Amino acid sequence: MVGTGPGSTDYLSPKALRVLQEADIIVGYKTYVQLIAPLVEGKEIISTGMTREVERCRAAIAQAQKGRKVALVSSGDPGVYGMAGLALEILYQEKLHDLVEVEIIPGITAATAAAALLGAPLMHDFVVISLSDLLTPWELIEKRLALAAQGDFVIVLYNPASHRRKFQIQRAREILLQYKNASTPVGIVRQAYREEEEVIITDLENLLSHSLDMFSILIVGNNQTKKLDNYLVTPRGYVL
Amino acid sequence: MVGTGPGSTDYLSPKALRVLQEADIIVGYKTYVQLIAPLVEGKEIISTGMTREVERCRAAIAQAQKGRKVALVSSGDPGVYGMAGLALEILYQEKLHDLVEVEIIPGITAATAAAALLGAPLMHDFVVISLSDLLTPWELIEKRLALAAQGDFVIVLYNPASHRRKFQIQRAREILLQYKNASTPVGIVRQAYREEEEVIITDLENLLSHSLDMFSILIVGNNQTKKLDNYLVTPRGYVL
Ligand SMILES: C[S@@+](CC[C@H](N)C(=O)[O-])C[C@H]1O[C@@H](n2cnc3c(N)ncnc32)[C@H](O)[C@@H]1O
Ligand SMILES: C[S@@+](CC[C@H](N)C(=O)[O-])C[C@H]1O[C@@H](n2cnc3c(N)ncnc32)[C@H](O)[C@@H]1O
Repeated sequence: MVGTGPGSTDYLSPKALRVLQEADIIVGYKTYVQLIAPLVEGKEIISTGMTREVERCRAAIAQAQKGRKVALVSSGDPGVYGMAGLALEILYQEKLHDLVEVEIIPGITAATAAAALLGAPLMHDFVVISLSDLLTPWELIEKRLALAAQGDFVIVLYNPASHRRKFQIQRAREILLQYKNASTPVGIVRQAYREEEEVIITDLENLLSHSLDMFSILIVGNNQTKKLDNYLVTPRGYVL
Repeated sequence: MVGTGPGSTDYLSPKALRVLQEADIIVGYKTYVQLIAPLVEGKEIISTGMTREVERCRAAIAQAQKGRKVALVSSGDPGVYGMAGLALEILYQEKLHDLVEVEIIPGITAATAAAALLGAPLMHDFVVISLSDLLTPWELIEKRLALAAQGDFVIVLYNPASHRRKFQIQRAREILLQYKNASTPVGIVRQAYREEEEVIITDLENLLSHSLDMFSILIVGNNQTKKLDNYLVTPRGYVL
């Protein structure tokens, strides 16, 4: 289970690279496998569409049972809304955990990749929340947003929206505005470290005037986060 | 400002490696610079002790002002309790931001590195909190711990303790126990991806019987997190 980092192969660890090169077969979501295509040229590839995670894990496990070395690929880190947990759950559920050897290779997750492009918004305590309610009850997501805002955490939002799904980010913004100033800085990063990369600094007030999709991530500041030119910086608290 | 990942150079990105190799001078905390020593052999190094972050940043900036290429090194990711925010703040405060060119290179942060060694505890929404109260009022940390527990977030604790500083983790455990079962799984990782690496799976009840220091990180599960042999897995919610 390999994390390939946010995008360009420049941000993929040597360990991940080695695992990809030694693999007999690569399993992953199409878009992500394409990002690492130059590294896995000539290899057998099983790539399925998006919401087919369970299928993807089962395919990977089936190959591993045949004794093949399988790289199950996630973008970013495989343990942050990625494939690692699901693959482990299936292995145990099917009692295959003694038959298939597993290693989890961490990667640079979208939160810190986006933060680096924005400056340093994650210098203080933060929460990571996915706005996808496919697998999580929306009420729980709302509750977490409210608690995160009450704690004045920096807030990272994965899966903020898709072309059809805009309700979640609209509602999330409303909740955050109950506790945070409308001028709270917000960073939006789309396709971090990929060709289509876009970096925008805005605020809670104006957030919805920017286009968001499933390749975007949002970072909402705490009450100390400041905009310095094109940077967002959350002070840690040093006296300068 | 370069993130060197959790430890072994196997988890440092090619981009970070290139920046280190091209640098005229390396600035960083002793222990971290030692971890990447093989990569920077023969280079000029300015390394200071721990709580000297401001001094370190100023030294890095002074060198950059002389026109030298400086790699200011953080372990993990430079934007997660690292040097990136502080360096940007100082640059702006001293009005040097137009004179010194800056790039922030993300790295694999300790949270996801530790998670990979534990299995997949971060598969659902999580918070990252530092228990160091050197720069943050302890009351705010307590408040955040309580809110994180109320939201049933997975909780990652950086800087949980030092040899002298044990009060914080004791108190944090008490607060978490007000909302979470004593049997909630806890992963402790010391020196992830370094020679001295230790990985322990325990629970809130027994947490304090394990030794913790400033090289440890803790991951406390949510109410779904389960122990599967030597793994901690937080389900994302897929129906299997
Ligand atoms: C299913 S999650 C996978 C996260 C991934 N495992 C990680 O650790 O970054 C997909 C979401 O991650 C975020 N994401 C992943 N890669 C990104 C990138 N390069 N730029 C911006 N957001 C990204 C987006 O919010 C996207 O909707
Ligand atoms: C000043 S913070 C630096 C964090 C770093 N910038 C990062 O992104 O991982 C130091 C704390 O990070 C955690 N930490 C950093 N590297 C670690 C490792 N290899 N294993 C376990 N914990 C680590 C520990 O909690 C430690 O007290």
